[in-house]
Amino acid sequence: MRALGRDHRTIWLNSDGSGVDVIDQTLLPHGFEVMTLRTADQAAAAIRDMVVRGAPLIGASAAYGMALAMAEDASDASLERAGRTIGDARPTAVNLRWAVERMRRRLAELPPTGRKAAAYAEAALIADEDVAVCEAIGEHGLELIRRAARPGKARIDVLTHCNAGWLATVDWGTALAPIYKAHRAGLPVHVWVDETRPRNQGASLTAWELGQEGVPHTVIADNAGGHLMQHGGVDLCIVGSDRTTRAGDVCNKIGTYLKALAAFDNGVPFYVALPSSTIDWRIADGVRDIPIEQRSAREVTHITGLTEDGRAETVRLTPEGSGAANYAFDVTPARLVTGLITERGVCAASEAGLTALFGDEEQAA
Amino acid sequence: MRALGRDHRTIWLNSDGSGVDVIDQTLLPHGFEVMTLRTADQAAAAIRDMVVRGAPLIGASAAYGMALAMAEDASDASLERAGRTIGDARPTAVNLRWAVERMRRRLAELPPTGRKAAAYAEAALIADEDVAVCEAIGEHGLELIRRAARPGKARIDVLTHCNAGWLATVDWGTALAPIYKAHRAGLPVHVWVDETRPRNQGASLTAWELGQEGVPHTVIADNAGGHLMQHGGVDLCIVGSDRTTRAGDVCNKIGTYLKALAAFDNGVPFYVALPSSTIDWRIADGVRDIPIEQRSAREVTHITGLTEDGRAETVRLTPEGSGAANYAFDVTPARLVTGLITERGVCAASEAGLTALFGDEEQAA
Repeated sequence: MRALGRDHRTIWLNSDGSGVDVIDQTLLPHGFEVMTLRTADQAAAAIRDMVVRGAPLIGASAAYGMALAMAEDASDASLERAGRTIGDARPTAVNLRWAVERMRRRLAELPPTGRKAAAYAEAALIADEDVAVCEAIGEHGLELIRRAARPGKARIDVLTHCNAGWLATVDWGTALAPIYKAHRAGLPVHVWVDETRPRNQGASLTAWELGQEGVPHTVIADNAGGHLMQHGGVDLCIVGSDRTTRAGDVCNKIGTYLKALAAFDNGVPFYVALPSSTIDWRIADGVRDIPIEQRSAREVTHITGLTEDGRAETVRLTPEGSGAANYAFDVTPARLVTGLITERGVCAASEAGLTALFGDEEQAA
Repeated sequence: MRALGRDHRTIWLNSDGSGVDVIDQTLLPHGFEVMTLRTADQAAAAIRDMVVRGAPLIGASAAYGMALAMAEDASDASLERAGRTIGDARPTAVNLRWAVERMRRRLAELPPTGRKAAAYAEAALIADEDVAVCEAIGEHGLELIRRAARPGKARIDVLTHCNAGWLATVDWGTALAPIYKAHRAGLPVHVWVDETRPRNQGASLTAWELGQEGVPHTVIADNAGGHLMQHGGVDLCIVGSDRTTRAGDVCNKIGTYLKALAAFDNGVPFYVALPSSTIDWRIADGVRDIPIEQRSAREVTHITGLTEDGRAETVRLTPEGSGAANYAFDVTPARLVTGLITERGVCAASEAGLTALFGDEEQAA
């Protein structure tokens, strides 16, 4: 998508072949810098430190990380080590393990001499597939946005949480793909952007993305969505998913569940956009069975922004001596989800819905 | 309550009689400074700029502001002017108009020469009554916390939103009064403190209050409460109210509604602590009939905290060019409220419940 006036992806091969380039998302929205990853450890660190984030981009980054490992050392031991290091970089994203497993299966069957080239090819394939998947999600979701238009209302208001935009994928995004499609199709779409504390991916990434692409949007505190829905200010919600159970429960950024409750209470459609790679066929009950990543309390107690004179500065928000807890995700039960927007179409958030579209993948899982 | 090791109220007569002292709450939790108000305009500004905030403290501040006006000029014109200036300082708090009306009624019946002394006496009475009301709320709520203890669970987890502590009143607080009573009674109470974006009154005021009084607490992002409730981490919620309809709908800090939805969805008791002065007998349907204050977008786009080297610094969180909306309150429908904790006891969030306790006040309203 557009950034600084030209088309970008979030991850690409360095032009001299010496590494893999990614946008350092920890610096957005106040700085735009490209970071080059040259080793599997650097790729794992980029995933862990959220230089790259978002389930699909984590998957693509993991794949390229495995390729970097093979470029260094294509032995079985190296393959195993890279799989472990990268696979453990973040606990929640099922795409991470999906990509690592896919790379490991593809590479283990080859002799070490063939692994480097095959690894880069497979990683590129994963990235290109992700772009195609996201664009398909965009096309399917576009129809939902079109249908959400209300007679006599000048704009179509979509609420989203966190960042499930192109920055979270290789391109297009998941939850934002339908919005980009709608905007490019000339629909009068306006986005309520939850700032998404504590890491503020909405205020810093989603707002930035939408601004770069020229999509009208307004940042709101995470607390505001319920009020907007009570007063007809939201026509539909679209969020992403880091992990989707076979029953349609959705694990996404902390606070998603609260917005789903408000949407349900006010009859606002609540859609989750997801590539099928986020489906975890092994589990049904997400609240019970998905472990929730806890991150540093410092993400709650401190925040970084830009000072009046243009410096990035970190400030403490809490009194000295007050501790904080930082749960990164929550689970939205399928009963609150109007539908799932996938690369193969829109389905009910249920085992029947998912199986109808992805029965073949369930068999393979 | 305790602050810096000694007992405090939030508002008191300056020792030399030259003005009214308040704690400048915009500087907390990083600085503790007392501001002296000498004129009605200064009192109105302190209310408008949230130097003092919280419905009951706004009421007491308004009363003292009227007294300051009478000290300057006790004419009928001055009385009218002060009533207008102070009454319009904040749009939502019903206590503001309640206190102004009470002062106006009391003073209008007196000749100008008697107004100054009567005004200070009436303001002091309002402040003392507020302390008594809050302490009574604390006693009634204490029983609810005691009953929320669960066998085999070491602590009693209470979630609160925003600041409805002693800083929001003259002393004790409303939602926090039961917590202080429980802590002083030796109950193992622990408080989940919603940071309460965008103004962060939870992270900055509630956490500070609880820390000063020695009450165990943990600050969380506003997004986290639903997850905690899904996993048994919250035994009850207690929040405050800026305005309560006769049907029991509650207008409180933006985001309260989302927590009430989560509590309802998880069978967690959701109580609202309120002095009867917040009851607006004229309206029933809060979602329809309570106008919601919109505040500056800058409260969302910028935030102030303490740098590593101890300076207060304001930083921008959003990309340049991204706008923000800032709704200050939302309305929680009575159907989501387990009960109202008032100075006369706990009642159902309904017209029947409120009338049973406050039928006399309804008659007078």
